Amino acid sequence: MRVALDAMGGDLAPGPIVAGAREAVLEAHDLTVVLVGDQERIEAEFARLGDSPRDRLPIVHTSQWIGMEEKPVEALRKKRDNSISRCWSLMAAGDVSAVVSAGNTGAMVASALFNAKMFLPGVRRPGIAAFYPSHRGPVVIIDVGANMNAKPEDLYQYGIMGAIYAEEILGATEPKIGLLNVGAEDDKGTELTRNTRDLFLSSPWASRYLGNVEGRDLHDGNARVVVCDGFVGNVLLKSGEGAVEFLFATLKQELARLAADIPREALEKAGAALHRLKARFEYEEFGGAPLLGIKGACIICHGSSGSRAIKNALRVAGTMASDRLSARIAEHLQDAPRATE
Amino acid sequence: MRVALDAMGGDLAPGPIVAGAREAVLEAHDLTVVLVGDQERIEAEFARLGDSPRDRLPIVHTSQWIGMEEKPVEALRKKRDNSISRCWSLMAAGDVSAVVSAGNTGAMVASALFNAKMFLPGVRRPGIAAFYPSHRGPVVIIDVGANMNAKPEDLYQYGIMGAIYAEEILGATEPKIGLLNVGAEDDKGTELTRNTRDLFLSSPWASRYLGNVEGRDLHDGNARVVVCDGFVGNVLLKSGEGAVEFLFATLKQELARLAADIPREALEKAGAALHRLKARFEYEEFGGAPLLGIKGACIICHGSSGSRAIKNALRVAGTMASDRLSARIAEHLQDAPRATE
Repeated sequence: MRVALDAMGGDLAPGPIVAGAREAVLEAHDLTVVLVGDQERIEAEFARLGDSPRDRLPIVHTSQWIGMEEKPVEALRKKRDNSISRCWSLMAAGDVSAVVSAGNTGAMVASALFNAKMFLPGVRRPGIAAFYPSHRGPVVIIDVGANMNAKPEDLYQYGIMGAIYAEEILGATEPKIGLLNVGAEDDKGTELTRNTRDLFLSSPWASRYLGNVEGRDLHDGNARVVVCDGFVGNVLLKSGEGAVEFLFATLKQELARLAADIPREALEKAGAALHRLKARFEYEEFGGAPLLGIKGACIICHGSSGSRAIKNALRVAGTMASDRLSARIAEHLQDAPRATE
Repeated sequence: MRVALDAMGGDLAPGPIVAGAREAVLEAHDLTVVLVGDQERIEAEFARLGDSPRDRLPIVHTSQWIGMEEKPVEALRKKRDNSISRCWSLMAAGDVSAVVSAGNTGAMVASALFNAKMFLPGVRRPGIAAFYPSHRGPVVIIDVGANMNAKPEDLYQYGIMGAIYAEEILGATEPKIGLLNVGAEDDKGTELTRNTRDLFLSSPWASRYLGNVEGRDLHDGNARVVVCDGFVGNVLLKSGEGAVEFLFATLKQELARLAADIPREALEKAGAALHRLKARFEYEEFGGAPLLGIKGACIICHGSSGSRAIKNALRVAGTMASDRLSARIAEHLQDAPRATE
């Protein structure tokens, strides 16, 4: 399995990116990671890291890269030799089966848009899927930021993509699909939600469609896949991250206040339990969020990703590519309604 | 101060609604609560509750009421003699200064729309404001569900309304206004967010405008007022409630597992600390969420409100009305850009 990695993407690139690639190939002996970016800087990282299986860590040099704050479309047009576009070209040429980047999300998505032949047939806009914690395990939320102007056909397609992703990656059995909305009643919400509902109900997926899911019901996990437009999904995901951080910060203060009353050993156990709990909300083991609806696999990592997140993203990207996830999605999208611009 | 209370609104109405009204007038000697709804059922509750200052608890009888699951517009058209519409008529006639309901939110908002003369001049759609916890105290999020198809002018107006509300009710000094968005950069988001930004930057409120706020930054409290359309705001608010419930449920399990290692006294303190912490996320002391942009005051309570929430909503509604919050908002809206249908 060959995966292209944007070595220049991420807040701390290329340091933890190169380190993550090295860790990944050390763990998986059938994995080759093509590092895309500034050759000199990547080599400098390897020099720092010591012994590496360099035969499975080739470098593809690019003279440019796109910063985290750059405007995606403008940057892609100006910097023709950037690392993100090169990753996609490698996949389009069949040289790699997956791409991974912790760089500019907008540029990753726009670059896939520019390489429209990388879309699965009938897909107008790919969607980013992410996990949200629930009492029954992670729920797949799609889209969380690729598509700010979703159409009903897009959300319908996201439902299919998300369900197959949940089956392949989470091992879910016939996961139910919910529509994020502001109330339980059918007529709630916007034109987008009402039309999406109609599409699901008149489709072969009607039996998998659970109806509206409200923000407060996400955690019950009845819907293992929840579809929404990229704006709402992004707010949902980031505010969830923020809420967890806020709660744990406040909890730590409370725990510190109680420290005198609790034996040291119990306090340490409580601290460990808190850490375990927090880990349930951080899906670093998945390394990032996949862009679904494309030929091949693509994982977009958090800008602040460390080497562990990168390593895991490379592993998951490899799994996604070898599982022929895209082929299954493509098959099920064949008869799906298609949106036009 | 006279406040109209929808005695028939809420999952458990009229029981806790009538009880909350009684508690409110017992606490505030200058308060009269006009109970609107089925006279017989309200009287039955009073009989159960014992001695009440009935001179400050008059009943206005209606033969109909709107259920929590009814379609708002349809219900308002069919049930002409419903308790929600009657509350608004009382305010329109100047008989009361505020209205409170734990009933069908959609019907409350639609009824205000039908009584368009209850809107402040220039307001196309009132907005519902709610609190979100932050490290610097509650943040005002507006709109959280009144307006599913917001225009830039609406969001701009919500910024003004929310800021004045934060000043009057939270005692905030020149609170900053943020725009909920998917990234920090100016061009992020949708046409709605970009046009809203332009309105703020070219307005007298430009110095109060903080720019984009992402979901994960809400808890830092730099923006004390955050504007968004009602769909996003509703998802944000409800998913926040859900996240807190989920976390505390999981924490309780972890605490139970540790119980054997921790002295009973410390365990009780930890339990109490958790309760205090949870209370920071439940704004029952405010009783509900105000509908802003109308003449007079209006509080919409959670459907599951108990007597304490109703009592507090009546108190806050009275404060809002006596503070002439609406007058201040009206004054500042005078020169605000106005949206048309």
